[in-house]
Amino acid sequence: MTVRRSRAQRAQLALLLEVAGTPKPGNVDRHRDYPDLRFEHFLAGAIGAHEGLQLAAEGERVGRAFERAVSGMSQQEAGNTQFGALLLLAPLVRAAADGDLSPEGVHEAVEATTVADAADFYRAFDHVDVAVADPPEAMDDLDVRRGSDAVEAVEESEVTLYDVMERSAERDGLAREWVGGFERTFRAAGRIAELDGPVPERAAETFLELLAAEPDTFVAIQHDEETAEEVRERAEDALVGRVDPDEFADELVDRNVNPGTTADLVAGALFVALERGVSV
Amino acid sequence: MTVRRSRAQRAQLALLLEVAGTPKPGNVDRHRDYPDLRFEHFLAGAIGAHEGLQLAAEGERVGRAFERAVSGMSQQEAGNTQFGALLLLAPLVRAAADGDLSPEGVHEAVEATTVADAADFYRAFDHVDVAVADPPEAMDDLDVRRGSDAVEAVEESEVTLYDVMERSAERDGLAREWVGGFERTFRAAGRIAELDGPVPERAAETFLELLAAEPDTFVAIQHDEETAEEVRERAEDALVGRVDPDEFADELVDRNVNPGTTADLVAGALFVALERGVSV
Repeated sequence: MTVRRSRAQRAQLALLLEVAGTPKPGNVDRHRDYPDLRFEHFLAGAIGAHEGLQLAAEGERVGRAFERAVSGMSQQEAGNTQFGALLLLAPLVRAAADGDLSPEGVHEAVEATTVADAADFYRAFDHVDVAVADPPEAMDDLDVRRGSDAVEAVEESEVTLYDVMERSAERDGLAREWVGGFERTFRAAGRIAELDGPVPERAAETFLELLAAEPDTFVAIQHDEETAEEVRERAEDALVGRVDPDEFADELVDRNVNPGTTADLVAGALFVALERGVSV
Repeated sequence: MTVRRSRAQRAQLALLLEVAGTPKPGNVDRHRDYPDLRFEHFLAGAIGAHEGLQLAAEGERVGRAFERAVSGMSQQEAGNTQFGALLLLAPLVRAAADGDLSPEGVHEAVEATTVADAADFYRAFDHVDVAVADPPEAMDDLDVRRGSDAVEAVEESEVTLYDVMERSAERDGLAREWVGGFERTFRAAGRIAELDGPVPERAAETFLELLAAEPDTFVAIQHDEETAEEVRERAEDALVGRVDPDEFADELVDRNVNPGTTADLVAGALFVALERGVSV
């Protein structure tokens, strides 16, 4: 009897293939590190995420599976590696486990999230520092950076995890996926499936296409919207050959401009592509 | 409660850190692929090995755990990626699970192997093509390349897996570890622990030291003993700076000279180092 890759393992492999895709301008990739955020941290993060991903594959609540995955991912020295990718993977794995890995299926999974899932989402911030936008002043109590200290406020306000994402959708590209049927994730999965060549190369090409299409919201938070738009335009140039993608990648790392949201989308897309039969 | 890396996951991480170590002359590394054996195949192989490694961590027979790990590892398009590394990891994980990850502890684990383990070892060859030396003529029935077809002969001859390794120890560096208390593996683990810097860089340095110290037996089988000795001398030159390790690495890949046994030793050593508290 052959040992087959499980669903949670496909999600882990998606995390690994994402970081191996090169060049992925501004991100850790097979050829680039940040001084304190290196390739091996992503390897360890992907290994550690297994337990949480396995919970999602077994039908556990999305928020709980996510929090467990983040806890395991964070067991390496760089802190956060794939928080955003896990935020997409948890509901995608859950939808696949429920037998409907489609925009409708994953919408069902995220819409079914509860206040308990929201509380788990806040708890996940205890494990890692994640750069996020400041909340509106009236929502200070619900600042995710408070982590589990905010859980009481979360429970009092009775917000579900889906509600939390709705409130962030304007500024956060991952929250936008949550409330928009994972549109870009599924589109990117289609691109990965239709491109030729080694899967990490397809992932890198898809990354560049995504980056050229919309400003990366993590860059907008980490720097500002002008930088995010500038990076988008340069990605467009790289895509059509006006800029060398490798030089662009070196430059963004030098400037500490990290389009992490776009990388997260690629990780989600790789999982969908693997589920649909793309092989490595 | 924090999700901690399990023992089987440490073994998976060792596999990933090994392939990420660069340059590792002649091997797939973070910067080098072979046309049909690429980095992503190693990522998928390490993910797939989990079930077998987990069995070893739960005290399953070494041969059985190895065969299951190889089966899962082989679920990618390149066929064999880490067969040899798993042959070291299965007893190392088992010894660690038994509470004694030392030369004595792992010797106990391999000496306790049975005819059933030997049969599983042969079955593992059904999953992948592995280049091995021709057996002595009188042992044609026990040619490992026959895979499970040889199981009947294995059972009739009543050889244990340890016996099989004893017979191969002269020509195979991994079998030599099995019968010699994993001497080079533990020594290399010590080097990884005492070197400074990112763990994949320590692994690459240790690889070069191992390669400079003894001819790689996989190179001897794949090519001949002269080539293996030439590679050893060049590794020595690289170690002392007479040869650029990166150019040496490119050259060996171009010549299809693949010191795989030495890479396997590094994977085993990384697992020991992680168990002993080296952190990523």
